Amino acid sequence: MAPKTAVILAAGLGTRLGGKPKGLLRIAGREILYRTIVLLKRNGVEEFVIVTNGRYAPLYREFLEKHGFEAELIINPEPEKGNGHSLHLAKVGVSGSFILVMSDHVYSEAFVERAVKGNGLIADRNPGWVDVKEATKVRVREGHVEGIGKGLKEWDAVDTGFFVLDDGIFSVTSALEEEKGGDYSLSEVVGRAGIEVTFVDGLAWTDVDTPEDVKRARKMLVKTAVKGTGDGFISRHLNRKVSTEISALLVERTSPNAMTAFTFLLGLLSAILTLANLPLSGVLYQMSSILDGVDGEIARAQMRTSRLGGYVDSLLDRYVDGSFLAFLAYSTLREPLWYAVALLALLGSVMVSYSTERFKGAFCRDAYSEISALRKLPGKRDERVFLTMLFLLYPAQASIKALFLLLALITNARVALTTYLISRKVSQSKTI
Amino acid sequence: MAPKTAVILAAGLGTRLGGKPKGLLRIAGREILYRTIVLLKRNGVEEFVIVTNGRYAPLYREFLEKHGFEAELIINPEPEKGNGHSLHLAKVGVSGSFILVMSDHVYSEAFVERAVKGNGLIADRNPGWVDVKEATKVRVREGHVEGIGKGLKEWDAVDTGFFVLDDGIFSVTSALEEEKGGDYSLSEVVGRAGIEVTFVDGLAWTDVDTPEDVKRARKMLVKTAVKGTGDGFISRHLNRKVSTEISALLVERTSPNAMTAFTFLLGLLSAILTLANLPLSGVLYQMSSILDGVDGEIARAQMRTSRLGGYVDSLLDRYVDGSFLAFLAYSTLREPLWYAVALLALLGSVMVSYSTERFKGAFCRDAYSEISALRKLPGKRDERVFLTMLFLLYPAQASIKALFLLLALITNARVALTTYLISRKVSQSKTI
Repeated sequence: MAPKTAVILAAGLGTRLGGKPKGLLRIAGREILYRTIVLLKRNGVEEFVIVTNGRYAPLYREFLEKHGFEAELIINPEPEKGNGHSLHLAKVGVSGSFILVMSDHVYSEAFVERAVKGNGLIADRNPGWVDVKEATKVRVREGHVEGIGKGLKEWDAVDTGFFVLDDGIFSVTSALEEEKGGDYSLSEVVGRAGIEVTFVDGLAWTDVDTPEDVKRARKMLVKTAVKGTGDGFISRHLNRKVSTEISALLVERTSPNAMTAFTFLLGLLSAILTLANLPLSGVLYQMSSILDGVDGEIARAQMRTSRLGGYVDSLLDRYVDGSFLAFLAYSTLREPLWYAVALLALLGSVMVSYSTERFKGAFCRDAYSEISALRKLPGKRDERVFLTMLFLLYPAQASIKALFLLLALITNARVALTTYLISRKVSQSKTI
Repeated sequence: MAPKTAVILAAGLGTRLGGKPKGLLRIAGREILYRTIVLLKRNGVEEFVIVTNGRYAPLYREFLEKHGFEAELIINPEPEKGNGHSLHLAKVGVSGSFILVMSDHVYSEAFVERAVKGNGLIADRNPGWVDVKEATKVRVREGHVEGIGKGLKEWDAVDTGFFVLDDGIFSVTSALEEEKGGDYSLSEVVGRAGIEVTFVDGLAWTDVDTPEDVKRARKMLVKTAVKGTGDGFISRHLNRKVSTEISALLVERTSPNAMTAFTFLLGLLSAILTLANLPLSGVLYQMSSILDGVDGEIARAQMRTSRLGGYVDSLLDRYVDGSFLAFLAYSTLREPLWYAVALLALLGSVMVSYSTERFKGAFCRDAYSEISALRKLPGKRDERVFLTMLFLLYPAQASIKALFLLLALITNARVALTTYLISRKVSQSKTI
């Protein structure tokens, strides 16, 4: 059971980032704190306590109001002192177990899902997105903190800034208040308490201190925004590598819907271009296929996904493919027989999607998640588009006919296999 | 709250139907009692008590075992006496409120859904599927039974054989046991008790006493087995009228899967026939479109629907349509431009289904139920097939070109409008 309360420490003065509150820094179109609050809410947290300073408090209040979030704001009048004091001040807003997070840490959904189920300090033995030199390290002994600090020589894991504590911790902060006159760090609290450590390894999270960190966090959000259950071979090995770079460039500048519209128009343009220049039309078609990943990546990185967006995108993809094949057939084929092949290629292309989407409609489950063999079957859109581009590089009649024949065979065979796999799965398992 | 227990009276000797237990009579491939038990289970009933006679008991036991149903069997050693005694015997298996039904009544799902929520005697003021002459009538006064019997001169409604009672009724049966030496009818119990009446009017149910009743019950099951949310104009006014007649003929003889396969092959045959005889191919295509309703009707009437069946049927429909357009284009068109139109017509045909099925995949809701305007938009399969048949009756080049152009326009306009309606619906309502 994840705790129902979260304390967010946001009193620190972000001197290396222009003195603005770091929690309100927008990365990939969303404030860091927006992400943290939404992800914690999705994982069962209902009450939020934000400890900040007098100067930032109005800004945080405005932020909370804008998004309709509710949170108790506690003001630390001495933010220049260590952040241990900020935790101590949260005492009035907390009872029982609670989550403690830093306002300048960016966490992925996968990380938060695991971390809320942990205990004590959540530490990462395999951090992929932090500057380890600058990170706070932890030495662990028998599952508890033995040592903690940036300069630790021997250490086991990196402090993720995410804690699952209970109010017993305030006896430690109370003692430190007296000893140190209120000036002590969270690390000192943790070290003194020798709290439990839970390892959550290798999932995406990072902290933000410098402009370089901001860039890294953005890249992390985009790279981990790939959904990918329906990705084919070309997507995994080529399209996604390029599209995530493009998404990282565009994620602060554009909306998912604008990208959907742009990609659709580029796809239509590539179809029309078959009338003029076949190799170029193929290359443009492949470019639109790469860009096709960008709207979804941006939407996920910006936490702006919508089922309607996915719906429209999926319809437009079918229209781009249909138009491309129609224009290509019109501008290259002459014999009725080959037109019939083109008609079957077009039918198969749409049916590849239809066969998996209709499954979702009937069973409310994702076909690719339910039947992993489907992921390996060739014939997905990314593969078809790439194949089309290859065949159009040398646009002889024979190669275009071969392309249509190949598409007709691959796609319709894929649909037949999909139906077979789905029938087998459904008759085997009574849970669907 | 519907009761958790149901008592089924099945001791009567079905003399007019060959002396076999009427509850085990198969109508549309299922025993009457199978239907009743499954429908009651779907509506919250967990315990079943069946009162039968010594001769039928082994047959009922076998039936229960075959279907994995659990029920308490109570034997009435004097079945020739009135069925009031059978109810009295059920006393040992019942406490609190319970449902009482007759084993020789066939109820539709819609009826059972409403009836279980009623109180006392469930009566129908507008019975559509019973022989009123033979039915038990009820006169109602201030919401309670005032008179009951076949020969009643003045009456308000027909007794549906479905009751929602509580164990207080057994004080009435106990009194009648003494008075009449165990020989009294359920009607006498109900009349004496003057129980409450709930009207459930005009929903499908019937009782089975004679071979004519069996036929009527079969027809009722088939006619009420039309799903119809996605039916277009031609389906509602032509196809369904024919298909339900065919289903009534075939429902005892064939399985839904066999019909799906047969209809698919007929559709493919009609596509191939475009090479030889266009008017005939169109007529055959329309015939396959009519038959396309039969597998679903039979499946629902036989209580054998499966999501996999619906899934495969939907894919096969797309392939029939795609093949028909491909073969038709191959055998009639010669100019590239018209092939391009044919490609767009084929694309649109598949996309009409794709656009609603993809909605279901994304939102787990039925587009036609959510957005009723979609039902009125032209361009559904039944309408396209009928249109195709009409244009092929006079198979000149011009009329076939007009057909392809019309199909391309109607279908793709429908998809655009569907997307618009769905977008509007989704942005208006936050509940989707």
